[in-house]
Amino acid sequence: MDSISMTGGSATFLPNGVKMASRECVRLTAGAVVGIVGSGDFAKSLTLRLLRSGFGVVVGSRQPKRAAEAFPHVVDVTHQEDAVVKAGIIFLAIRREHYSSLWGLKHLLVGKVLVDVSNNRRLDQYPESNAEYLASLFPESFVVKGFNVISAWAMQSAPKDTCSQVYICSNSLVARQQIQELARQMGFTPVDMGALSSARGIENMPLLLFPAWRGPVLTAVALSIFFFAYSFVRDIIHPYVRSGLSLFYKIPVEVVNHTVPSVAITLLALVYLAGQLAAAHQLGYGTKYRRFPLWLEEWLGCRKQLGLLSFFFACVHTLYSLCLPMRKSDRYLLMNMAYQQVHANMQDSWNEEEVWRGEMYLSFGIMSLGLLSLLAVTSIPSVSTALNWREFSFIQSTLGYIALLIATFHGLLFGWRRAFEEEAYRFYLPPSFVLTLVLPVTVILGKVLLLLPCFGRKLHRIRRGWQASQTRKDPPRSANHLSPERVTIM
Amino acid sequence: MDSISMTGGSATFLPNGVKMASRECVRLTAGAVVGIVGSGDFAKSLTLRLLRSGFGVVVGSRQPKRAAEAFPHVVDVTHQEDAVVKAGIIFLAIRREHYSSLWGLKHLLVGKVLVDVSNNRRLDQYPESNAEYLASLFPESFVVKGFNVISAWAMQSAPKDTCSQVYICSNSLVARQQIQELARQMGFTPVDMGALSSARGIENMPLLLFPAWRGPVLTAVALSIFFFAYSFVRDIIHPYVRSGLSLFYKIPVEVVNHTVPSVAITLLALVYLAGQLAAAHQLGYGTKYRRFPLWLEEWLGCRKQLGLLSFFFACVHTLYSLCLPMRKSDRYLLMNMAYQQVHANMQDSWNEEEVWRGEMYLSFGIMSLGLLSLLAVTSIPSVSTALNWREFSFIQSTLGYIALLIATFHGLLFGWRRAFEEEAYRFYLPPSFVLTLVLPVTVILGKVLLLLPCFGRKLHRIRRGWQASQTRKDPPRSANHLSPERVTIM
Amino acid sequence: MDSISMTGGSATFLPNGVKMASRECVRLTAGAVVGIVGSGDFAKSLTLRLLRSGFGVVVGSRQPKRAAEAFPHVVDVTHQEDAVVKAGIIFLAIRREHYSSLWGLKHLLVGKVLVDVSNNRRLDQYPESNAEYLASLFPESFVVKGFNVISAWAMQSAPKDTCSQVYICSNSLVARQQIQELARQMGFTPVDMGALSSARGIENMPLLLFPAWRGPVLTAVALSIFFFAYSFVRDIIHPYVRSGLSLFYKIPVEVVNHTVPSVAITLLALVYLAGQLAAAHQLGYGTKYRRFPLWLEEWLGCRKQLGLLSFFFACVHTLYSLCLPMRKSDRYLLMNMAYQQVHANMQDSWNEEEVWRGEMYLSFGIMSLGLLSLLAVTSIPSVSTALNWREFSFIQSTLGYIALLIATFHGLLFGWRRAFEEEAYRFYLPPSFVLTLVLPVTVILGKVLLLLPCFGRKLHRIRRGWQASQTRKDPPRSANHLSPERVTIM
Repeated sequence: MDSISMTGGSATFLPNGVKMASRECVRLTAGAVVGIVGSGDFAKSLTLRLLRSGFGVVVGSRQPKRAAEAFPHVVDVTHQEDAVVKAGIIFLAIRREHYSSLWGLKHLLVGKVLVDVSNNRRLDQYPESNAEYLASLFPESFVVKGFNVISAWAMQSAPKDTCSQVYICSNSLVARQQIQELARQMGFTPVDMGALSSARGIENMPLLLFPAWRGPVLTAVALSIFFFAYSFVRDIIHPYVRSGLSLFYKIPVEVVNHTVPSVAITLLALVYLAGQLAAAHQLGYGTKYRRFPLWLEEWLGCRKQLGLLSFFFACVHTLYSLCLPMRKSDRYLLMNMAYQQVHANMQDSWNEEEVWRGEMYLSFGIMSLGLLSLLAVTSIPSVSTALNWREFSFIQSTLGYIALLIATFHGLLFGWRRAFEEEAYRFYLPPSFVLTLVLPVTVILGKVLLLLPCFGRKLHRIRRGWQASQTRKDPPRSANHLSPERVTIM
Repeated sequence: MDSISMTGGSATFLPNGVKMASRECVRLTAGAVVGIVGSGDFAKSLTLRLLRSGFGVVVGSRQPKRAAEAFPHVVDVTHQEDAVVKAGIIFLAIRREHYSSLWGLKHLLVGKVLVDVSNNRRLDQYPESNAEYLASLFPESFVVKGFNVISAWAMQSAPKDTCSQVYICSNSLVARQQIQELARQMGFTPVDMGALSSARGIENMPLLLFPAWRGPVLTAVALSIFFFAYSFVRDIIHPYVRSGLSLFYKIPVEVVNHTVPSVAITLLALVYLAGQLAAAHQLGYGTKYRRFPLWLEEWLGCRKQLGLLSFFFACVHTLYSLCLPMRKSDRYLLMNMAYQQVHANMQDSWNEEEVWRGEMYLSFGIMSLGLLSLLAVTSIPSVSTALNWREFSFIQSTLGYIALLIATFHGLLFGWRRAFEEEAYRFYLPPSFVLTLVLPVTVILGKVLLLLPCFGRKLHRIRRGWQASQTRKDPPRSANHLSPERVTIM
Repeated sequence: MDSISMTGGSATFLPNGVKMASRECVRLTAGAVVGIVGSGDFAKSLTLRLLRSGFGVVVGSRQPKRAAEAFPHVVDVTHQEDAVVKAGIIFLAIRREHYSSLWGLKHLLVGKVLVDVSNNRRLDQYPESNAEYLASLFPESFVVKGFNVISAWAMQSAPKDTCSQVYICSNSLVARQQIQELARQMGFTPVDMGALSSARGIENMPLLLFPAWRGPVLTAVALSIFFFAYSFVRDIIHPYVRSGLSLFYKIPVEVVNHTVPSVAITLLALVYLAGQLAAAHQLGYGTKYRRFPLWLEEWLGCRKQLGLLSFFFACVHTLYSLCLPMRKSDRYLLMNMAYQQVHANMQDSWNEEEVWRGEMYLSFGIMSLGLLSLLAVTSIPSVSTALNWREFSFIQSTLGYIALLIATFHGLLFGWRRAFEEEAYRFYLPPSFVLTLVLPVTVILGKVLLLLPCFGRKLHRIRRGWQASQTRKDPPRSANHLSPERVTIM
């Protein structure tokens, strides 16, 4: 790195040994000058933030006179050549297409830190990332990728509103640490992403739309379509075909309310099925050091999202169910029942079994929702960071399984008797609740199996580092330092 | 700054050049001594925190012997003159009224960093901030404002409970960075607020009561009063005046439940109206570089609060609606209807249109609430910082507009037919739902207008830096770096 | 500390004075080498994280050849003696039982920083903490406890997913600051826990299961059992014994729905009772500087948990209540009532008083839940840190008391008349709502008492530092710096 570095001119006064030491020191001193090439919105916002953080700024523009109007008076707006000479760290706030226009300044950029803040418009727009392209143009400069996830607006705002993370990577360790320190002094939280090969990922970041949610949402949509169609055929088409009964009014509420809980409990079962498959994989191979297949790794990685979607569907199911007595249709049916009862001169229509079934499944439903809400609350980032691993695992694993168990009882109580009535098998299709409960019941049985001593003990040993093929002499550490696989089988 | 700085006595052993370098280094070394003038609760808590963070503390008191009892034994409690000499950084934990009593120590304070931690009892209590007053008394010291937002209690607590932000400002860059570093080492998150002129704002901070919520809450209260009165006149007064019907029992639930959803949807429409007015402003002036009028800026700045209040009212509306069938009044009316039906000997009271209307608006209501809940969850600070801009915008803008659209359908379905019945216009007043839906429908039409290519394309160009009056040669940056205005029209 | 420290070999080139200065500088330079003893899962994860953060790693193993396979190629896997010589900071990723096996390397560890990352399997497993035991073995090394709360999995993950806190303690200030700096550069948030005597607490951290929740949860369980039993005896056993009426179907919903709201309001009253007892203590002793009894301190410390449990029970109560009209039992009773009304030929069963009572208590219930939800939302860590003290106090204290008041009215309206009916005193037991409301009413009266000028003014003076026995000349600071006791009486 050039001697005109962040440590300032005073470095030249020091004896040689000290100068070396000061070069290693990545601490930025107050009042140091940072260069910016470009005069667009981002350059302006960046300038304001740097000034507020106590740095001097020199802006390099192709038309310095015109550009100067848009910047505060304390800023030195000058020609690009001039700006590049004055600073050791230079932000390039220009588009990738203009990188080559800096080619003429190549000799001035030797040993400088160049910060690439650019973004693209599409994922993987170019064969190589902007930062790597820049590094190939200026191999004797230290290229750092960073700050691209910060919008011009966030850059300009007071730090308190946006304590955002800034992802930084570079092939130069010193430059990376220097820019991290700069980010920290500007009020951001730097995240070290390693070498410049991470630049593509960092450039894609602002373009991604809920990448971790894609799989779970698609699963939920597919399940919704399936269960909706199933219920539609059984509950609407069948009576219409068989008896000419038009029950189409049931579509907006009743069919939806058959669909939503089915999706909710299936998603919850999928959360825990992933862990059981992982456990089976470990038991099968007798080691935790063999990688899971890719599809299982991805499934394991999106269990939080599956769980939150399950909670969302459970809440919607609750709302729909609570709305049932409000419906006009319900009231008409009630009136008609009252009419029938009076005409049949039946003083008491009480049915003890029906009453018990109803009270029980309501109670189980509420309990299950209550437990799921605890799982959801502990998924809020600031809540989950306040929990230690044992607490998080207790909520997400132990309480989660209990919620699944209770939700399964809730479903069984709802439809138990109907499963054995012949007329419930319309078009030879079993009632939708039967279909729905197959997966949760399987998962619960799987859990019981894994708790059996024969499997449970072996699994415990495997997760503590034991391998079927050999006996390790150097066991890893005590039990609370959980290996990835332990987390995995949550 | 004096040589008795945080870098300690060893600095005097260094050659001159190195000493200069060390003066620039704001890194605080372990075991450095910090001075505190004052012996009250805050001084005590500050002392404990400093000791725990590895600093030495010297306390200056007017009555050192008496004060010493309240401090740990390792603390050097001495006369003010003495304390001031021993440290380079001095916290003033005394009231503003006593600042002038330090006048006699003025020569000892030259080149020292004085940290003003004081608060006032009322907003803007004095013509100038405490810190600026202190700086005017001691112009040769480096005055830093900070730590006033931390209570004595939080200061004393373990850092893990209170990773609070500390706002710091000073006219001296070096002093500001030094105190920021100190704050970091004490376990706080420093926020750089720039020059000492920010001190007034920082001193007002602990006295503010939800400043960003004032406008939205007042709006919600005003809307509540208006819609309540409107519904009261139409639904209670009108039948009483016209038919002598006493329906006052409807006040606690039904009238409230007419008011609450009206307020909810109006607030939601106001969120998006602000953005549309901003877009109109930009289209009208043909540039994004012209400032919005102040009232619009403020409105734009409190959209999050308006949205959260809208969600709160929507939740309350849901609760009230779900309670409807629980009411005694509802049951009496149901009994009476059953009686009527039996007496009219009407076997089936089914009304297909009413049923469909009811099922549909319930369904739309639930969907709308579901979407709003996603908006609310992503407003939790730790959730929103985990989203990138594209995700945040998708939830808050796209899903928000869909929620508004569905909520509008919910309202239209509820009352559509009544809008055209003559008897619904009591006292010539239209049904409240008609009044309620005027604004949301306008906002939806406005959005449709802005999506038309003729306006949409021009707006897109304006937001990318294009100006009607000139053609800029230096377009700012790629699309994802959003300018403030883009955020604005969310 | 040895010269082979983090500041690197260049230090040896400096004159003596500078070397001293560099020893004091805790800044870690890029590319410095960190040592790790051990080759288990945690050692591997730690290696990966250190490499990604720009450090070199040397691993010391008893079987370096075999261990080397599991580490990246850039890592220097060697014998323990060799690794220990090469680095200034050495992580011990081995079990406590193997600490003594390092005894032979004692002379090589003099002046080195040893980081103890170990955990135990049970709380207080050994008479002294692992770190203190290590320090006793190697008194000439600088032992630092830390990183034990990070699992191997979290250690290996990208920093963005886990911005976790790392608790660090050591008897050496310099070593502590150095390891804190290292933690920061690795992407963690270090929390300074002071001297090595904190190690026991830090080692227990990952083993604790919601320590702050134990008391409140036990209280809630005990209250639930009591109120359930009470309601069971009165509402199920009494009618069965007296009239042979079998109402056992009421257990899952109705009895539970009597229990849950009673627990909710009692927990909410307990939140505020603690503060009142603290105020009484201060008034009684005439000072805020006298410690509260231990049980009161603990009670004061778990008010947040009590409040959140109260909210949880209130939500469950809401769900149960909303489910009431959905029950089969309710529909049968409704049918039977319709039958009765028709047979009695009663055209209108309207009861104005019952209607008003019902509408009012529903309304109060919803308002109370709405306020409680605000309290709950502001308990989310990232929300509460965004509030200043005045805002937090307004929500938690003012709104909390209003919620308690409204909830009490909700209860009174529900059962008021029944309190004075003789038949309501089954088995001489008063209705459960009477029992439930005793505590809330007491707390409300207590608050009224404390607001009376005679007590209120004295309390205000006490909390500003005034003491009954003497007149302090040096009042602490302005009102907004709240002392612990102010927080206490929230």
